[in-house]
Amino acid sequence: MKKSVLVTIGSVAVIVPLFVLALSINENKAEQQTINAVPKIKRMESVSAKWAEHYPRQYDSYLQTKKSDKIDDMLAKSPALVVMWAGYGFSKDYNAPRGHAYILEDNINTLRTGGPTSGATGPMPTACWTCKSPDVPRLMDEMGELDYFTGKWARHGNEIVNPVGCADCHDNETMRLSITRPHLKRALDTEGSLMAADATHQDMRSLVCAQCHSEYYFKPTEWTDKNGETKVAKVVTFPWANGFAVEDMEKYYDDINFVDWTHKISKTPMLKAQHPGYEIYKTGAHGLNDVACADCHMPYVREGGVKYSSHNVGSPMDNIANTCLNCHSEDEKTLRDTVARKLARKDELHNTAMDVIGKAHLEAGKALELGATAEEMKPIQMDIRHAQWRWDYSIASHGSFFHAPEETLRILGSAINKGQDARVKLRIVLARYNAAEYVAPDFSTKEKAQKVIGLPFQKLVDEKVLFLDTVRKDWNKEATDKGLYDPKTAVKEFKTSYK
Amino acid sequence: MKKSVLVTIGSVAVIVPLFVLALSINENKAEQQTINAVPKIKRMESVSAKWAEHYPRQYDSYLQTKKSDKIDDMLAKSPALVVMWAGYGFSKDYNAPRGHAYILEDNINTLRTGGPTSGATGPMPTACWTCKSPDVPRLMDEMGELDYFTGKWARHGNEIVNPVGCADCHDNETMRLSITRPHLKRALDTEGSLMAADATHQDMRSLVCAQCHSEYYFKPTEWTDKNGETKVAKVVTFPWANGFAVEDMEKYYDDINFVDWTHKISKTPMLKAQHPGYEIYKTGAHGLNDVACADCHMPYVREGGVKYSSHNVGSPMDNIANTCLNCHSEDEKTLRDTVARKLARKDELHNTAMDVIGKAHLEAGKALELGATAEEMKPIQMDIRHAQWRWDYSIASHGSFFHAPEETLRILGSAINKGQDARVKLRIVLARYNAAEYVAPDFSTKEKAQKVIGLPFQKLVDEKVLFLDTVRKDWNKEATDKGLYDPKTAVKEFKTSYK
Repeated sequence: MKKSVLVTIGSVAVIVPLFVLALSINENKAEQQTINAVPKIKRMESVSAKWAEHYPRQYDSYLQTKKSDKIDDMLAKSPALVVMWAGYGFSKDYNAPRGHAYILEDNINTLRTGGPTSGATGPMPTACWTCKSPDVPRLMDEMGELDYFTGKWARHGNEIVNPVGCADCHDNETMRLSITRPHLKRALDTEGSLMAADATHQDMRSLVCAQCHSEYYFKPTEWTDKNGETKVAKVVTFPWANGFAVEDMEKYYDDINFVDWTHKISKTPMLKAQHPGYEIYKTGAHGLNDVACADCHMPYVREGGVKYSSHNVGSPMDNIANTCLNCHSEDEKTLRDTVARKLARKDELHNTAMDVIGKAHLEAGKALELGATAEEMKPIQMDIRHAQWRWDYSIASHGSFFHAPEETLRILGSAINKGQDARVKLRIVLARYNAAEYVAPDFSTKEKAQKVIGLPFQKLVDEKVLFLDTVRKDWNKEATDKGLYDPKTAVKEFKTSYK
Repeated sequence: MKKSVLVTIGSVAVIVPLFVLALSINENKAEQQTINAVPKIKRMESVSAKWAEHYPRQYDSYLQTKKSDKIDDMLAKSPALVVMWAGYGFSKDYNAPRGHAYILEDNINTLRTGGPTSGATGPMPTACWTCKSPDVPRLMDEMGELDYFTGKWARHGNEIVNPVGCADCHDNETMRLSITRPHLKRALDTEGSLMAADATHQDMRSLVCAQCHSEYYFKPTEWTDKNGETKVAKVVTFPWANGFAVEDMEKYYDDINFVDWTHKISKTPMLKAQHPGYEIYKTGAHGLNDVACADCHMPYVREGGVKYSSHNVGSPMDNIANTCLNCHSEDEKTLRDTVARKLARKDELHNTAMDVIGKAHLEAGKALELGATAEEMKPIQMDIRHAQWRWDYSIASHGSFFHAPEETLRILGSAINKGQDARVKLRIVLARYNAAEYVAPDFSTKEKAQKVIGLPFQKLVDEKVLFLDTVRKDWNKEATDKGLYDPKTAVKEFKTSYK
C-alpha cells in the first residue's frame, strides 16, 4: 500500500505540472497566433501604444530603450570637435546618442535646434525632424512630401510628438517591414546595386534602419503650392549616385559644389557627414555576409513559448548570448577583448585626426587674418574639407569601428594625411606673412574651445530655456489636445548637458 | 550461359582493379610507415638531399619553391624606398622575396651584400647569413655561436651553401620540429608570454618560421676566444623584452639608443625593421585563434594513400582549396575579393606613408644644408625615425595586410601622422633659413631617386660582378671540394635586377 500511495503522489506530482504546462503552452500558442494574425491598426498610426495593444512584448522591449538615459557630452570628451564644427550647430551641443525613446526629446532639447520664438523662426529647417518620429510619414501623407519639407523646424513642433516607433518601419495593414521615407527608395534606385522594389525581407531588416542611419543632405527643391506660389523645400537626399564609399560621396558633393556650412574660422566650404552607418556597414564583414542590422540589434528572444524580435535596439554587446554567439563560437570574454582592440585602434587614429584637423582650422584662420588670398587658401581649404569629411564619414555612425574596422582605419589614415597636408601648406603661407612660428591657441577643454571659436554659449542656453518654457509648452498643449501623444513615451522631464 | 559469362567478366572487372588497389594501398602503407619511422640522419646534416632519401615527397614539394623565380624590383616599383633607405644597403637593391630555394643565391647576388675581395672585407657582418641556410646551425655547432657571429659576411662564404632546408626546422634524431636558432629561445623567454620550453607542437608549427620571420637587430657582444683575445660578435637579437607591438619594440630601441644607420640625407638615427611577421601575425585573427603558420603555408596534401605536409612554402592563395577552405565556408572568388580589398586598403596608406617620409628626409636634408642646428633638428629626426620604423614594421613582412589588416592600417596611419608632423616642423625651420617654399626634388623613378641620394650604382654593380667572378667562384670550388652542396639546390645561373 505504501508503494501505491507513493505511486499516486508521484503521479499527481508529475501530472499537475504537466497540466499547468499544457495550459501555459496553449496560452502561449494563442498569443503567438495573435501576434501572427494581422490586427486592424489605422493608417499612419503614429502612437505606438495603439500598436502595443496587439504587440505588447515588442512594445515593452521598445520601452527598454529608455534605460539608455545617460547624457554623455561629446564636446567635453573631445573638445577639438568644437573647433572643427565652428559656425555649425554641432559646436554648440553634441551628446552621444541615447535610446530610440529619447530621440525626439534630445532633438528638441539640443542647443543645435535653437530657441525659435514662433513656427517661422530658428536655425533649422523642417527636415531636421525627418528621422525622429512616425509623425513624419503621417505628416508627409497628410500634407505632401514637398510641403512637409518646406519651412522652419518649429513649424511642425505641435505635430511631431512621438519618438521613433512602430509606424516608422511597419505597414499598418500587413505588418510587414516598410520603407516609409521616400528618399531611401529614390536613393536605392539611383545607386542601383539593390533596387527598392527588389528588396527581400532580409534586405528590409537593414533597409528600415537605413532610412535614418545613412548619410544625407538637404537638397533645395522648388515646388508650387496649390495657390500657385513658388516655394523651396529642403528635401532629405542621400548622396548615393556614385556609390557608398567615402570617395564616392565626396565626389558627389564636390561635383555639385555642395557646402553644408562655411567654417567660421578657416572659411572652408565644409561638409558635415551625418551618420553613414548603412553605407560603411556594407563594406564590412557583416554587411558583405548579409547579416542584417536586425540580426544583431534586434535579436529574437523567447519568453515562454513566444518568440519575438526584441525592439530594444541598442548595442549587441549588451546581449552577447543572443547576438554574437548565434554565429561566433568564441566565449564572451574573447569577443569583448576583440571588440576592445578594435575600438582602441579606432580611438587612436580618431583622436589624432581631430587634433590635426582642429589645428588646421586655427592655422588657416591665422593665415586669413594676416591677409592670405583666396588663391593661396583654396588648396588648403580643399584639403581641410576632404580631411574633415573623411574623418566624419568614418566615425559619425559611432559603430563603424565594429561594422567595418578596416575601412574605418583606412579612411582615418587618409583624413590624417589630408589634414596634415593642409598644415604643411599652411606653414608655407604663414611664412609669407611672417608668422611661420604661429602656435594655435589651446583647445583642450570644451570651455577653452568654445572661447577660441567665440561661441556665445550662455546666450544660446538662455534662448533655449525661454523656448522650452514658452513655445515648447504650447506645442505640448496643442498636441495633447489633438490626442497625438503616447503617454508612455511622452517624457516630461528633460536631461541636457547644459543645465 | 550468356548470363554466366557476363557474371564472370563482371567479377574479373571488379576483382582485378580491387587487387591492384589493394597492392597500391599496401605500398602506400609501407611508404607511410617509412615516413613515420625515424631514419638515421647525421647530426647537423645541412644537405637537404640526404633527408630526401627518407622524405622524397617533402623534398620534392620543397623544390617546387623554385617556381617562384621572378625578380620583382621593389625599388623600381616604389622609388621612394631609395630615398627612405639612403645610406643603407636596401637603397642599392631590393627585390620581392622569392621561394626558399633561392634564399641563399638572392643573398649572395644582391648589391646589399656588396663585393668583398676577401673573407675580411665587405659591408655586412656574418649575421647576414643567419636566416639563410641549415649550414648556419652546423657552423654554430662546430665553432660556437659567438665565433660564428664574429667577422664579415664573406668569412663564411665557402661554408654556407645550402638554402633554407630540412635541418633548419627538424631534429635529425626525432624528426620533431626544433628551434635551431638560439636567439629565438632567448627572445621567447625574455618576452615571457610563451616560454620556449613550454612550446606545444602547434606552437612549434609557427615558431620554426619565427626563427627567421621576425624583427631583429645585431647586438654587439664582447667575448674572449681560446687565445684570450677580446672580440666583438654581432649577435642576431629579437627586441621582444617589452612585447611584440610596434610601440613595444620602438621603446626597446629608443631606450638603448639603438641606431641601424644614420640617414645619408636627413642624418636621422634610423631603425630598419626587418620582417616582423611572427609579431604582427600574433595580433591578427589567425594568430589570436592559434592558426599556425604551417596551417596555411604548409597544408597537408594527399598523394594516393600518403598524407604529408607540403614544403612548398608560399602564398596560401595559390592553393585555396587546401588552405583557406579548410576553415572558411566562402567560395574561392569571395575569398579572393576579400583579400584584394584588404591589399588595396594597405597599398593606399602604404603609398601615402612612403611619399610623406621620402619628402620629410629630403626637406630635412635641405634644412641641414642651410645650417639648421642639432637642437632644431632633433624633434624632427625623432618624428622621422618613428614614422619610418612604424611604416617599416607594418609592411616589411609583406603579408601583414593579410595577417593583421587592422593593426597594419593603424600603424600606417600613425606612421603617416608622424611623418607629416616632421614636415610641419620642417617648414618652420626652413622658414628661419629663408627656404619656406622649398620643393623636394623629384624621386618618382628608381633612377631619379638613386641620383637624388647620390648612389654610385654602376660602381656597386661593377664591384659585385667582380666578386661573383672571383671570390664567389672560389667559394663554390671550396664548398664543392668539401662535399657541402646539394646538387638540386645549387643554382648555377643567377637572376638579378641589375644585369
